[in-house]
Amino acid sequence: MHRVKVRVVEDALDANNTIARANRQDFDRAGVTVVNLMSAPGAGKTALLERVLADTGDVRIGVLEGDVEGSLDAERLASLHVPVVQLNTGAGFGGECHLDANMVRSALGSLPLADIDMLIIENVGNLVCPAEFRVGEDVRAMVCSVAEGEDKPLKYPLMFRACELAIVNKIDLLPHTDVDLDTLLGNLHAVHPGIEQLLTSARTGEGVDALRDWLLVRASRSEAHAVA
Amino acid sequence: MHRVKVRVVEDALDANNTIARANRQDFDRAGVTVVNLMSAPGAGKTALLERVLADTGDVRIGVLEGDVEGSLDAERLASLHVPVVQLNTGAGFGGECHLDANMVRSALGSLPLADIDMLIIENVGNLVCPAEFRVGEDVRAMVCSVAEGEDKPLKYPLMFRACELAIVNKIDLLPHTDVDLDTLLGNLHAVHPGIEQLLTSARTGEGVDALRDWLLVRASRSEAHAVA
Repeated sequence: MHRVKVRVVEDALDANNTIARANRQDFDRAGVTVVNLMSAPGAGKTALLERVLADTGDVRIGVLEGDVEGSLDAERLASLHVPVVQLNTGAGFGGECHLDANMVRSALGSLPLADIDMLIIENVGNLVCPAEFRVGEDVRAMVCSVAEGEDKPLKYPLMFRACELAIVNKIDLLPHTDVDLDTLLGNLHAVHPGIEQLLTSARTGEGVDALRDWLLVRASRSEAHAVA
Repeated sequence: MHRVKVRVVEDALDANNTIARANRQDFDRAGVTVVNLMSAPGAGKTALLERVLADTGDVRIGVLEGDVEGSLDAERLASLHVPVVQLNTGAGFGGECHLDANMVRSALGSLPLADIDMLIIENVGNLVCPAEFRVGEDVRAMVCSVAEGEDKPLKYPLMFRACELAIVNKIDLLPHTDVDLDTLLGNLHAVHPGIEQLLTSARTGEGVDALRDWLLVRASRSEAHAVA
């Protein structure tokens, strides 16, 4: 029984990867860089995006907003006049705890790919399963709130290993917690040596410019690629 | 295809419920009250348990510690000289993002049921899937950190609806965030009218006595049941 179960899981991931590659081809063809943005619930993905998207110069960024239910975050971002498409895993996808390639594919028709340079996919808040499913993204980034404690890289290593960038957010709370930033960063680099890191506070705005720059550099790389 | 997928999911949940009932019978026979404790990653489950378990009088409490990987939390609690059994979903269970009844059943032989009055099952940190799987518990409780924001009941309603108790933790951080406690509690009661709530800070100890009392009352009820 156990062997059968394992094989089924592998088959499902293979199907996901096949669809992810198809998504990636469509994104590449449109010259759109795609970021898969992940975190635990309440780490501050949307609050950071509100700050970043307030001014992206002539780089056009769209958002695919993944949630189990509701459209609270999509409404927050749409008020910034960026194109936002809501994808609910609770409607037709069984309330899944992550986005997969097929869900993203189902939203492709609603995304204005010809009018954007970068798509940020805000995944469902979860430190486990989203890391297991490629969705056709170029790069994976995750937000880790200091309020979650120092030990999260050790407890959820797959997520921290899967991402090219770790955004350590809510650093304004550090003086009000027992969390030691050096210990947190030490755990991060023990799990994923060489991972890029940014320290941010969506509340005070600290580090937001650096995060915006990190994103815009990647958006322009893709643009160059599409032209060539 | 979609209909088949739905049926398979229902079958899996039925199997889970069957095993959960078997677990429950074993717990009842031993006179052990079981609490399924859930939260997002880093909400403070273990820190609260450290406070609560430091003094439970003559009520004997054991812990089943669920994590994807590692035994950091189990080691923290074992230092309090309470019986702790580690259950890793990454070892043999495919890295699942939640505990299910079969995983808990696999740990039954390691649990000193005859020597405890209450078992607290600390689930994997995740606000989605743990709420979907009964494991044989008497009661479900969840921890929600104020640092996660006001909107989490609206975004993860199944978890908040599944639980009899919501523990709103890290209230010492309230003055340092933009979170409005009344809005958070309003969202909580909009999603689950009548849910019990406790306000706690594992850091300052505020509300920990009330949480301990809440647990001990339930442990003694079960004892009376086992004697009768």
